[in-house]
Amino acid sequence: MNTFGRIFSISIFGESHGKGVGIVMDGVPTGIPLNEDDFSEDLSRRKSGAKGTTPRIESDLPKIMSGTWNGFTTGAPLMVFFENTNVRSSDYDKFRDTPRPGHADFTSGVKFKGFADPRGSGHFSGRITLGLVAAGVVAKKIISPVHIQAHILELGGDDNPERAIDNITGTGDSIGGIIQCTATNMPQGLGEPFFGGVEATISSLVFSIPAIKGIEFGSGFGAAKMRGSQHNDAWISPEGKTQTNNAGGVNGGITNGNDLVFRVVVKPTSSISIPQQTINLKTGKIETLTVEGRHDACIALRVPVVLEAATAIGLADLFLLSKI
Amino acid sequence: MNTFGRIFSISIFGESHGKGVGIVMDGVPTGIPLNEDDFSEDLSRRKSGAKGTTPRIESDLPKIMSGTWNGFTTGAPLMVFFENTNVRSSDYDKFRDTPRPGHADFTSGVKFKGFADPRGSGHFSGRITLGLVAAGVVAKKIISPVHIQAHILELGGDDNPERAIDNITGTGDSIGGIIQCTATNMPQGLGEPFFGGVEATISSLVFSIPAIKGIEFGSGFGAAKMRGSQHNDAWISPEGKTQTNNAGGVNGGITNGNDLVFRVVVKPTSSISIPQQTINLKTGKIETLTVEGRHDACIALRVPVVLEAATAIGLADLFLLSKI
Amino acid sequence: MNTFGRIFSISIFGESHGKGVGIVMDGVPTGIPLNEDDFSEDLSRRKSGAKGTTPRIESDLPKIMSGTWNGFTTGAPLMVFFENTNVRSSDYDKFRDTPRPGHADFTSGVKFKGFADPRGSGHFSGRITLGLVAAGVVAKKIISPVHIQAHILELGGDDNPERAIDNITGTGDSIGGIIQCTATNMPQGLGEPFFGGVEATISSLVFSIPAIKGIEFGSGFGAAKMRGSQHNDAWISPEGKTQTNNAGGVNGGITNGNDLVFRVVVKPTSSISIPQQTINLKTGKIETLTVEGRHDACIALRVPVVLEAATAIGLADLFLLSKI
Amino acid sequence: MNTFGRIFSISIFGESHGKGVGIVMDGVPTGIPLNEDDFSEDLSRRKSGAKGTTPRIESDLPKIMSGTWNGFTTGAPLMVFFENTNVRSSDYDKFRDTPRPGHADFTSGVKFKGFADPRGSGHFSGRITLGLVAAGVVAKKIISPVHIQAHILELGGDDNPERAIDNITGTGDSIGGIIQCTATNMPQGLGEPFFGGVEATISSLVFSIPAIKGIEFGSGFGAAKMRGSQHNDAWISPEGKTQTNNAGGVNGGITNGNDLVFRVVVKPTSSISIPQQTINLKTGKIETLTVEGRHDACIALRVPVVLEAATAIGLADLFLLSKI
Repeated sequence: MNTFGRIFSISIFGESHGKGVGIVMDGVPTGIPLNEDDFSEDLSRRKSGAKGTTPRIESDLPKIMSGTWNGFTTGAPLMVFFENTNVRSSDYDKFRDTPRPGHADFTSGVKFKGFADPRGSGHFSGRITLGLVAAGVVAKKIISPVHIQAHILELGGDDNPERAIDNITGTGDSIGGIIQCTATNMPQGLGEPFFGGVEATISSLVFSIPAIKGIEFGSGFGAAKMRGSQHNDAWISPEGKTQTNNAGGVNGGITNGNDLVFRVVVKPTSSISIPQQTINLKTGKIETLTVEGRHDACIALRVPVVLEAATAIGLADLFLLSKI
Repeated sequence: MNTFGRIFSISIFGESHGKGVGIVMDGVPTGIPLNEDDFSEDLSRRKSGAKGTTPRIESDLPKIMSGTWNGFTTGAPLMVFFENTNVRSSDYDKFRDTPRPGHADFTSGVKFKGFADPRGSGHFSGRITLGLVAAGVVAKKIISPVHIQAHILELGGDDNPERAIDNITGTGDSIGGIIQCTATNMPQGLGEPFFGGVEATISSLVFSIPAIKGIEFGSGFGAAKMRGSQHNDAWISPEGKTQTNNAGGVNGGITNGNDLVFRVVVKPTSSISIPQQTINLKTGKIETLTVEGRHDACIALRVPVVLEAATAIGLADLFLLSKI
Repeated sequence: MNTFGRIFSISIFGESHGKGVGIVMDGVPTGIPLNEDDFSEDLSRRKSGAKGTTPRIESDLPKIMSGTWNGFTTGAPLMVFFENTNVRSSDYDKFRDTPRPGHADFTSGVKFKGFADPRGSGHFSGRITLGLVAAGVVAKKIISPVHIQAHILELGGDDNPERAIDNITGTGDSIGGIIQCTATNMPQGLGEPFFGGVEATISSLVFSIPAIKGIEFGSGFGAAKMRGSQHNDAWISPEGKTQTNNAGGVNGGITNGNDLVFRVVVKPTSSISIPQQTINLKTGKIETLTVEGRHDACIALRVPVVLEAATAIGLADLFLLSKI
Repeated sequence: MNTFGRIFSISIFGESHGKGVGIVMDGVPTGIPLNEDDFSEDLSRRKSGAKGTTPRIESDLPKIMSGTWNGFTTGAPLMVFFENTNVRSSDYDKFRDTPRPGHADFTSGVKFKGFADPRGSGHFSGRITLGLVAAGVVAKKIISPVHIQAHILELGGDDNPERAIDNITGTGDSIGGIIQCTATNMPQGLGEPFFGGVEATISSLVFSIPAIKGIEFGSGFGAAKMRGSQHNDAWISPEGKTQTNNAGGVNGGITNGNDLVFRVVVKPTSSISIPQQTINLKTGKIETLTVEGRHDACIALRVPVVLEAATAIGLADLFLLSKI
């Protein structure tokens, strides 16, 4: 199920080591100014190359293949494509027999009966999120002036991300982290009843990002230790401003106009250089596996802009629905 | 958006103080034995009446209105209805002007332009989850022999739930809690790629349950402090058994056959007897609001069976999809 | 798949001889005045009892079970239920072994593996269209001031419907007919590109009505004999009025503001009193089958209001989408 | 709404004179052998160049951009792209002010508020059906051994298509026609109840093909003159064979295993060289419009393979659903 959204409806496709990855966005309103440069800033934030990220560097040049004319969206489906250029696929075949711990090698093998493209995790690669980022750029325009900002709260348990990266570098191991996402200038009334609520919409998008293991809105897991008299956010203005924001900006699945706030946890990158134990599916014997290649010691570093994109995509769909 | 699911597709309806609440389930396989008694056990687990729950007691008798014949599902839509019998709606009108903190009074007012049924929170009432529980009963049959069990880990920060309830009783205040849900006997290969992954599917259902503020799978937020070498679950059998289960039974959105494990946090019940501050939307003045009526001091007590239902519904849809 | 629509989303349920039939309508805008009397006129047009229709008379009293409060729609799902009262199910079991020609006995047996409710065709009964008519009443309010009117063009090849009915009455046989449906006061710009065009939307709803075998828009099958210079509708006003209306009010799947016009053909009622040949599925022998019971000699008589409903439902969904 | 299908779910994109057109197919089963040559035969049947078709000749080379590996489908989305190479867009701007009769210039202008790409009808071009044909090739593999064959019954009212083309050639005018589509080797039990029936599914796809004005199944409009005793297809074998096939292979929306048969009418091509009357939307004055460029005198000639594709796509979705 590679499609999401009722109005702003996106379909992703592509593989890590195939011809490229891309996304089709349907339901984009007409008349939005859009050109390929508009994607640069968010794409560069997702890029690797910095300390703690993989040295595989892709140019990540977005090509708008349909849906714009004379620099504006036309109302027709918007397709953005990213060619794969820096591909090395030497040795992924072995993971079909000796699945990497933490990866989808085993489950994609079951699911796709051995036909999944194994190169660079194929369609299960984090590279697929390029399309999400591209859709996020368009979604941010749709929901303007809402402003979404995600930032790292801690990495590897350290609230000093740089120090955490320094500590992990060179160990061959990896760390995860916690990222907070905040949307300001929020309109009221976004969110559909029950299954279409804001938390339901955003969480289902967020869990599509590889490596996310949890999400909490507002007070989140901290709410478990609070009393109702502490947790309830008092209304302090007729416009809906609240004194506290334990709700994270959402009541009954619908935005109240206060900041939308949530946090996610990113697990430590599954690909590590340290030898690991796994099973050989053919021989049934335990083997030691070394995952070579180029890895992110901390994939969480690259997640914030993807998280913003997922949030923007969800809000854009709800925003368009709210016009009805 | 009161409909969920691609194959096992459910549509909920109803209000807390209207004629009743119910659910239509489409895509139910034919030939499943089903009668009204089958709902009793799960419905009784959701019931109020115990210490810490509201004294409003509804009979909650399910009526199968369509979709079965001679005690078996027919393949036609299955409709289950619950009549409302014990309704007191004296005094909800005032919440339209002085919205209750923590409730959807304000946001539903915005969203539905003043036309939302305010009685007992109307369509935003937790009573709507009766339909979910009913669908959960059917879903559990569909995914048999998968066994889903949710239980309370802690209430109000106390890992002794009874003590926590004793402490809150009579204070007029409320507490929340953390609930863990585990599915055993899991088949492998459930989950669709990207937007249709297991975590995405379950989280979007779980956040439809009122009062849920967060969800984490497997290691969850604890993953933020782990290293990859600790977090990766080593494969130890060709059947896919892993040594640890930090993944919570899911890799790349697809089940690996190990137990599916996740936890949710339930906020403290918003309805409390303690006076609270709110705004009068008409006068613009701060007022003190006392929410009378019958409340749950700890709604988390009634959530486990609803959580099981949400899980079963999501898994049933993925299970049916996996047959293709 | 008993659900239709992206915004005005309806879910039908029920069986001919079960507890009743009904419909859940999601996405109904708030604030529409609605009470049970509003359904009377359209329901009475669908009723049987007139010459050429079955003598089975149901009271067809609609009950609004959710979604309204104080006489207005609330934005929550609207459920309308019709109890079955006049039910005789003596002898449907035999059709499982000796399927009636023209009916769904055989195919529903295959599809639902013998579990389909056979009584009165169960979920395949024309009685299910009661829900459609109810949704049509709501849809007509949504798209007001659009006016939809369907009328019979011919029955049994005779452009005098009364004469046609007189001729068939008492023969034990049945006739079909052609019905034209016209929507006036049409807004421009309804219809989504490609798969969501007006013709695609309406046709998929219309073919859900039992007994419909074909549909043609504007010039329809007559277009096969025309030249482009005749068929093209010249634009004669900047508001989009055309000189002719061979397009039936739709270009490229999108309404042009001229009348929406289409015709459907209704096959002769499959239930006839005349003995028919069929196969006994168990013995493999040809048998003579007499379908007793109460039948419509011409079901087409009851179709116009159902056709209006299907049209209104489709247009309502497109109308709500066009607000985005 | 450029997406269709619940399981075999396709998303089209592209414009006539942009970078290209394409399609994303989600839900393709794994392990289907597929390479670019597999598309050749159907694409060549859609091609122009023959008498009666436009002299604009595109190479129409399909590029599989994702979803296959080592010559088999992987279960990931399959994207097929067709570059536009032979593009001349000199003079489409004028149609925004003086809309062509029979075309979507006027309605797309309204719908997309003046932002639609006007070049070669943009996203409303028949060129978009290239993606449908590509999806049809895959769909035909999915439903094998079902065999679908469409052929022209008559063109311009003449049952000798060649003569019809000879007569229209050089006149600057255009003709339409009637095409029959038959699927043999049909499995029983395809089709979902009510809104997901075979006729509903196929008709909604077929009306997405530009220029289709009507569709009829089995006896079609001829049923209006028949009696039930003539129209009912007697069952003559326990396997579901019928003596006649007035039903067109479908009862109650579900296939009965007999041939699926339907006919469509294609209107005469809207683009003609003969001068036509239209309105100037800016001046409000009637003008004479001459549509220059390269046209099909009879677009119906190119429709059969597109019709087969639409049929295969619908059946593939229903076939995959039937596995559940």
